[in-house]
Amino acid sequence: MDEDKFVNLLSSMFKYPKGIIGIGDDTAVLPYKNGESLLFAADTIIENRHFIKNKLSPYYIGRKAMAVNISDIAAMGGEPLYAVVNLGIKKLDKIFISKLYRGIKNIARKYNIKIVGGDTVKSDYLFLAISIIGKVKNNRLLIRSGAQVGDAIYVTGTIGGAISSSKHYKFTPRLKEAQWLNNNFNINSMMDTTDGMILDLGRLCKASKRGAILNRSTFPISPRVKSFNKALEEGEDFELLFTVSSEVDIPKCILESNTKVTCIGSIIDKEGRIFMKEAEGIRKIKLRGYDHFK
Amino acid sequence: MDEDKFVNLLSSMFKYPKGIIGIGDDTAVLPYKNGESLLFAADTIIENRHFIKNKLSPYYIGRKAMAVNISDIAAMGGEPLYAVVNLGIKKLDKIFISKLYRGIKNIARKYNIKIVGGDTVKSDYLFLAISIIGKVKNNRLLIRSGAQVGDAIYVTGTIGGAISSSKHYKFTPRLKEAQWLNNNFNINSMMDTTDGMILDLGRLCKASKRGAILNRSTFPISPRVKSFNKALEEGEDFELLFTVSSEVDIPKCILESNTKVTCIGSIIDKEGRIFMKEAEGIRKIKLRGYDHFK
Repeated sequence: MDEDKFVNLLSSMFKYPKGIIGIGDDTAVLPYKNGESLLFAADTIIENRHFIKNKLSPYYIGRKAMAVNISDIAAMGGEPLYAVVNLGIKKLDKIFISKLYRGIKNIARKYNIKIVGGDTVKSDYLFLAISIIGKVKNNRLLIRSGAQVGDAIYVTGTIGGAISSSKHYKFTPRLKEAQWLNNNFNINSMMDTTDGMILDLGRLCKASKRGAILNRSTFPISPRVKSFNKALEEGEDFELLFTVSSEVDIPKCILESNTKVTCIGSIIDKEGRIFMKEAEGIRKIKLRGYDHFK
Repeated sequence: MDEDKFVNLLSSMFKYPKGIIGIGDDTAVLPYKNGESLLFAADTIIENRHFIKNKLSPYYIGRKAMAVNISDIAAMGGEPLYAVVNLGIKKLDKIFISKLYRGIKNIARKYNIKIVGGDTVKSDYLFLAISIIGKVKNNRLLIRSGAQVGDAIYVTGTIGGAISSSKHYKFTPRLKEAQWLNNNFNINSMMDTTDGMILDLGRLCKASKRGAILNRSTFPISPRVKSFNKALEEGEDFELLFTVSSEVDIPKCILESNTKVTCIGSIIDKEGRIFMKEAEGIRKIKLRGYDHFK
């Protein structure tokens, strides 16, 4: 099975009553207080897949483990609150541990997140499985399945080059950008890009029962990448991918953080299918991206 | 560092405002609705430490990963609500995965817990890092640090033998028992026993700034164990350890579930020190138990 088939299997096993969004979006959405929902998510990073232990300071390993979770809360239009840290590690070396947790703590503190617990086990490979709780106003909740035919598709920042650069561990989760967009515009759907722009857009389209047509010439490809296709498939961008009615005037740049926002195409009614406008014409694209299990 | 020193290091790094209990108890305690708090915890089980993959059905691996988290919520006097599953696995084999998740699902459903998300990564070793959310009435919250001098110390079920028997993966988390005790008596402190009775009691005593004197002849040692000391130190019991004023009349058995409850000693004012009454006299006990990193 690949990851998407696996998620489909789980979705068929677990059903939810009204008022709960479970497996399948960036976070779960759960009942909370009047007018607000609780967000609950988990993300794991593991040695030799998401980082090479001897090539990356433990500070940045901790930072990345926390940042990927913040990115999930951002993509739902939410505000992160609390996190717990599951750590698998070979031995409890005080210097290593202190750096690792300082990386977690510093980025958590920046976004006012409290680290409130966790568990540590002995493991030959280093892994960090952080779970996060956040909250969101019900009328500002952003999910993957809200894309409408005719919506313009936007992406923040650049696409590709995250792995060859330091972006995959130094990235700033797009929390402030998501909150600013969410407060100022009626966003129809949003997610963060983790496994490559095309695979992730395919997921957003499938959740929305829609398709997309993209305009290759508009793509904000990172100057670091030489191959257009590689940029779309390599993953770890941690940018926002969102759709909004084409009548809405989204600025080209979020001034506060100087983050670029680019329209790359529009939503169409062909469920799960993505097309690309190129100089040679229009072609259908395969939904390929990073898959741990392929 | 051993595990307790590691927890002390983390406790010194992370400080909390009033109204939040963070690292150090069975779960974190967080603001929620009027009169209630949110509980948030995480527990990881990993191949070759908590189970031998080829010797245990994936059903029971999944079941155990969920049960240890339910036990944490039970120990706080709470009610479990939602969980997310971080899975590290070598390949996504459909039969293996289905059994694993059926084990998680069946015990979750029994306690009305919804599995609402998670993350899966490729890992040479199988691990499951589940995080759980629950809730508790503020006036029924049970923490480790509430033990009072003179309190009677109780433990449910039997001590020891969990690893040589199937108890370590087939155990029923003491949720109903904890709720019944919590509803009918004013329990002063509670935790679940995971790393051995003595080490865990030492943690409860330290959190309460108290000590304990135990009566060896009363210990409900599992008939499976030959060595008294081993029974106290091997861990994985997943029983409730709690203290209550000696004037309270706790029954010897919780009738509904037929779970034995045994008084094994009392709380004294010698902080962090545990003594044992034996035929030969009173001796001070070393706080030894299961430690992943020793």
